[in-house]
Amino acid sequence: LDYQHVQVPFEITLWIMLASLAKIGFHLYNKLPSVVPESCLLIFVGLIMGGIIYGLNDKSPPVMDSDIFFLYLLPPIVLDAGYFMPSRPFFENIGTILLYAVVGTIWNVFGIGCSLYGICQVKAFRLQDVSLLHNLLFGSLIAAVDPVAVLAVFEEIHVNEKLHVLVFGESLLNDAVTVVLYKLFRSFCEMSTINSVDIFVGVGKFFVVGLGGVLVGLTFGLTAAFTTRFTKDIRVIEPLFVFLYSYLSYLTAEMFHLSGIVAIIACAMGMKRYVEANISLKSHTTVKYFMKMWSSVSDTLIFIFLGVSTIGENHEWNWPYICFTVIFCLIWRALGVLVLTFFVNRFHVNTITSKDQFIIAYGGLRGAICFSLVFLLPDFHRKKLFIAATTVVILFTVFIQGMTIRPLVDLLAVKRERESAPTVGEQIHIRFLDHLLAGIEDISGHWGQYYWKDKLEYFNSKYLQKILLREHDQPKSSIVLLYEKLERKHAIELAEAGQLGHAPSHPSLLRSGFLCSNNNRTAITDKKLEDTLNPAVLENIQEILARNLYRIRRTGPAYNRHTLPGEAEPVEHAEEILILRHKSL
Amino acid sequence: LDYQHVQVPFEITLWIMLASLAKIGFHLYNKLPSVVPESCLLIFVGLIMGGIIYGLNDKSPPVMDSDIFFLYLLPPIVLDAGYFMPSRPFFENIGTILLYAVVGTIWNVFGIGCSLYGICQVKAFRLQDVSLLHNLLFGSLIAAVDPVAVLAVFEEIHVNEKLHVLVFGESLLNDAVTVVLYKLFRSFCEMSTINSVDIFVGVGKFFVVGLGGVLVGLTFGLTAAFTTRFTKDIRVIEPLFVFLYSYLSYLTAEMFHLSGIVAIIACAMGMKRYVEANISLKSHTTVKYFMKMWSSVSDTLIFIFLGVSTIGENHEWNWPYICFTVIFCLIWRALGVLVLTFFVNRFHVNTITSKDQFIIAYGGLRGAICFSLVFLLPDFHRKKLFIAATTVVILFTVFIQGMTIRPLVDLLAVKRERESAPTVGEQIHIRFLDHLLAGIEDISGHWGQYYWKDKLEYFNSKYLQKILLREHDQPKSSIVLLYEKLERKHAIELAEAGQLGHAPSHPSLLRSGFLCSNNNRTAITDKKLEDTLNPAVLENIQEILARNLYRIRRTGPAYNRHTLPGEAEPVEHAEEILILRHKSL
Repeated sequence: LDYQHVQVPFEITLWIMLASLAKIGFHLYNKLPSVVPESCLLIFVGLIMGGIIYGLNDKSPPVMDSDIFFLYLLPPIVLDAGYFMPSRPFFENIGTILLYAVVGTIWNVFGIGCSLYGICQVKAFRLQDVSLLHNLLFGSLIAAVDPVAVLAVFEEIHVNEKLHVLVFGESLLNDAVTVVLYKLFRSFCEMSTINSVDIFVGVGKFFVVGLGGVLVGLTFGLTAAFTTRFTKDIRVIEPLFVFLYSYLSYLTAEMFHLSGIVAIIACAMGMKRYVEANISLKSHTTVKYFMKMWSSVSDTLIFIFLGVSTIGENHEWNWPYICFTVIFCLIWRALGVLVLTFFVNRFHVNTITSKDQFIIAYGGLRGAICFSLVFLLPDFHRKKLFIAATTVVILFTVFIQGMTIRPLVDLLAVKRERESAPTVGEQIHIRFLDHLLAGIEDISGHWGQYYWKDKLEYFNSKYLQKILLREHDQPKSSIVLLYEKLERKHAIELAEAGQLGHAPSHPSLLRSGFLCSNNNRTAITDKKLEDTLNPAVLENIQEILARNLYRIRRTGPAYNRHTLPGEAEPVEHAEEILILRHKSL
Repeated sequence: LDYQHVQVPFEITLWIMLASLAKIGFHLYNKLPSVVPESCLLIFVGLIMGGIIYGLNDKSPPVMDSDIFFLYLLPPIVLDAGYFMPSRPFFENIGTILLYAVVGTIWNVFGIGCSLYGICQVKAFRLQDVSLLHNLLFGSLIAAVDPVAVLAVFEEIHVNEKLHVLVFGESLLNDAVTVVLYKLFRSFCEMSTINSVDIFVGVGKFFVVGLGGVLVGLTFGLTAAFTTRFTKDIRVIEPLFVFLYSYLSYLTAEMFHLSGIVAIIACAMGMKRYVEANISLKSHTTVKYFMKMWSSVSDTLIFIFLGVSTIGENHEWNWPYICFTVIFCLIWRALGVLVLTFFVNRFHVNTITSKDQFIIAYGGLRGAICFSLVFLLPDFHRKKLFIAATTVVILFTVFIQGMTIRPLVDLLAVKRERESAPTVGEQIHIRFLDHLLAGIEDISGHWGQYYWKDKLEYFNSKYLQKILLREHDQPKSSIVLLYEKLERKHAIELAEAGQLGHAPSHPSLLRSGFLCSNNNRTAITDKKLEDTLNPAVLENIQEILARNLYRIRRTGPAYNRHTLPGEAEPVEHAEEILILRHKSL
C-alpha cells in the first residue's frame, strides 16, 4: 500500500465526492431543502464530520486554509456570479449598489468597531486590553456581507430581481472596501505611531484597489474575447479560455493587492457577450454547465469546511463580547440601510419600499470570507476571542437569518421574481424606451445612464465588435439570438415529442411529414426486425414505426406489378393504421 | 507585488495558457498540421522554451516531475481514450491486443535488454560496467509503446478501425506488463541475490496487477453508474461523478500498486453505457466536451514538457549504446509483430495483412511514459546514459516515424477509416448476425465470443440495468437512441436552416408551417421595429420576418371592419409576398 504517493489528489477527490454525495442526499428528500437552506445542512454535515475527526484524533480538526479558500474555492463562485449576473438591473442600480457597498460597509466597520470598543471599556467584562484599533480591525472583517452565503440563500427564495441584485451586488463589490480597510487596520496595528498621511493614503487606496480591479478584469476579459476569435478550427479548447483568463485576472489582481473579486466580475461581464458570439453552441453549453458545476462544488466545500473548522479548541469564550457583536452587526446594518435608502429614494422614481429595506438589512449574511480573514490575523493574545465571535456571527446569520428569511418573505409578501422570461414584445418595447430616453437625455443635456449606455453601445458596435468578433459583418441582436434559441428549443421539443409520444398536442405536426428525410433512413422491413430483436426492443421500435413510418410507406409504396404508382387503396390503409395503432396501444 | 502568494496557481495557469495558445497558433496555418504532426510541433515549442530558460538561467530547466505526469497529466488522456474507445472492434480483437500487449512487450523487453547487454560486452565501446539487470531494466522502460504518442499520431492519419484499435489497445494494456517488469527489475537491481521464488512471484504479479486493475475499475465504474441514478433533481453536478469516480479508480489502483491505466479504462468502459442513459443530454455534452478538452490540454502539456526537459545537462552521450538502442527497438518490434501475427493469423478468418503488420510495427511510438520512468530510476552512475538513450528514442520515434507514417500509409494504400457512420440498416444486420452466430455457437457447443457476448447481454438486461438505470422499465436499444439522435439533429438543422436561409433544399418544410407556435411570439408590428432599431439589426429581423412570418399573418389576420374572417384576397397576398421577397433579396 502506497498511500503517501497519492495522498494529495486522493484526499481532494474524496472531499469533493463527500460534498457531491451530501448534495444528492439532501435532494432525495424533497421536503428538507424546502425548509432548511442547503447551506445550513452543509454546515451541519461539516459539524458532524468535525466532531468525528475531533473524537477520533482527540485534537482539533484542520481548519480551512485561507490560501485554499482565496485561491481555489472562491474564484469559481465569483466567476459564476459575474458571468450570470443580470447586467441590466445591475447597471440600472449600480449607484445604489456602490453606495451600499462602499459607504454602507465603512459605516458598518466604524459603527461595529467603535461600539465594541465602548463595550470593552466596561470593567465587569474584563476586556480592557482590546484596543480601539483591534476592535476596528475586527469590525472590518465582520462588517462585510458575504457573497457565497447571500447567493446560497437568495437563490432559493426567489425575490424580485432588483432586490436580489442590490444585496448580491453589494456583497460582491464590498470586497474592495473590505480588502483596503482590513489591510489598513492590520498594518496600523503593527505600527507604533500612525501619521495622518497614512490615513490619506488609505483613502486613496480605495480607488486604486477598486478601479484597478476593474481595469485588470476588463483587460483580461477583452483579451479572452479576442483569443476566441481564432478558435474556429479547434473548438474543443474554447471553453478553456473562459476559465483561464478569468482565473488569471483574479490572480493578477491579487498579486498587485487589488480586489480579485472585482477583477473577476469585470472580466466575466466584459467577455461574456463577445465570447458567446464567437464560440460554438456546444462550447457554450460546456462553459455554462461547468461553471455552474464548479461553483456549486466550491460552495458545498466551503460550507462543509466551515462546519469542520468550527469544531476544536480555537475559541475563547466571552459572553458579553460575543453577544454584543451579534447585536451590533444587526443594529448597524439596519441603521445603515435605513439612512442610505432614505438618500437613495430621494433621487429615484422607483423607490425601495420599506419591505425591501427590511429584507436588504436582514439578508446581510456573513460567511466564509470573514472566517478566512480572521484566521489570517497576526497572532495576538485575543485572536481566539475574535475567532469565536466570528464563528458565532456566521452561524447566527446563516442558521437563524437564513432559515427565517423565507417565511418572512412570504409573510411580508415581498414582490417575487417573475415566473416567465420577458416576451419578445416586451424586450422590443424596453429597447424602444431605451432609445427614446437616450434621445430625451441628449436633448435635455442631462447625461444620465441612458445617454452613457447609448454612447457605450455605439462605441461597442463601431469598434469593439469589429476587433473582438469573428464574423463582424454579422452582429446579431439579442432579439435575433432569442428567436434562434426559441426555434432550436422548439425543434428539439418537436423531435422528442415525436419519439416519446407524450405530446398529444403535436399530432398534426407529427403527421404533417416534416420528419420524412429521417424516416427514409429507418424505412427497413418489419419482418427482419421481428426475427432478430428481443421483445422489449421490438416493442419500442414498433411504437415508433406505428407513429411515424406509415406515411412514408404510403408516399413510397413498394413496387407491385398489379398496381400503378399512386393507386393507393384508402380502405386497406385505414385498416392497416388501425391494426398498428391497436398493437401499439 | 506579492508573487509568492499566487505563484503555484499562476504558473500552472500560464503553462496551460501557453499550451492552448500554441495549439491555436498551429491551426492558424492550415498547411502546417497536415504535414507535421502536432506532437512534433509541440515538442519543438518545448525545445525552444527549454532553450530560452537554459539561456537565461544558465542551468538546466526543470524536468517534468514524474509525480505530476502520473497523477495529473496522464489520467485525463487515458480516461478520454477509455470513454471513447470503440467497444465493438476492441472486444472483437481483445485476444490479439492482449497477445501484442503481454507477449509482445515481454519479447521486446528481453530482446532489447539482452542484445544491448551483448553490445556492452564489446570492449571498444567502454560499457562493460552496465550489467545485464540494468540492461533489462532499461529494456522494460523503453519497450512499451506509449498511448499518448500513439493517439496523437494515429488520430491524424485515420487508418481503419481494426488497425487503430490494435495499436492503441496494445499501447494501453501493456501498462500492466510494464509496471510489473519495471518494478521487478528495479527491485532485482537493489537485491544482492535473486531467488527463483522471486521470479515466480513476478510472473504471478502480472495477473494480479492486470486483473486487479480491471476489478478496481469496474467496481468504481458501476458505483458511478449507480450514483447517477439519484441525480435527477440536481443535474448540475452529474458530470462531476464521471470524473471523480474514474480518477478515484486510477488513484486507488496506483495506491495498491495495480495498473492505474487498466483501471481507469475498465471504469470508463464499464460506466459509459449506464451513465449516458441516466444523465441529461446537456450533462452528457459537458462530459464529452470537457473530457476532450482536458485530454487535449494534458496531451499538449506533456509534449511541451517533453521538449523542455530534453534541454539541459542530464545526458551522458555514448554513440554506440544510443544508436544500437534505436536500432534494436525497431528490429525487435518488427520481429515481434511478425512472429505474433503469424500465430494470430492461423486462428482468424480476418487475417492481418502484411501492410497492416508494417504499420503496427512502425506505429510503435515511445513517449512520455518512458521518459517519466527513466527519471524515476534509482541513482546509479549510468543513469544519465539511459536518460540520453530514452530521449533519443522518443525524439526519433515521434519525429521520424511520426512524420513519415502518413506518407507511408498513403503509399501503401492502407485501408482507411470509413467516412460515414454505419447506416441503421447495417446496424440491424450486424445485430442480426450477432444473434445468429450466438445461436450457431450455442448449438455447436463452441463457447466463442458471440456466446459470451450473448450471455453478458442477458445478464446486463436481467440484473445490471435494473440496478443501475433510473428508468429501468424503459431500456432503450441503441437503434432507438440513434433514431432519437438523428431526429434531434435533423430538427436543429431545420431550425437553423430556417433562420440562416442557407438551405434551399428545405423551403417546402419551412413554408409548411411547423414553426407556427414560435412565430406567434414574434408576431410584432413591423412599424415599431423600424423606428427603434439600428439598420443592421433591422435588416436581420426583416429577413426572418420575410421568410417565416408571412404565413402567420395570413392564418391570423388583423381584425378589419370591412372583411370577414377567412375572407383573404389571394392577389393581395401574392403581391405582398413578392414585395417582401424583393426587399429581402
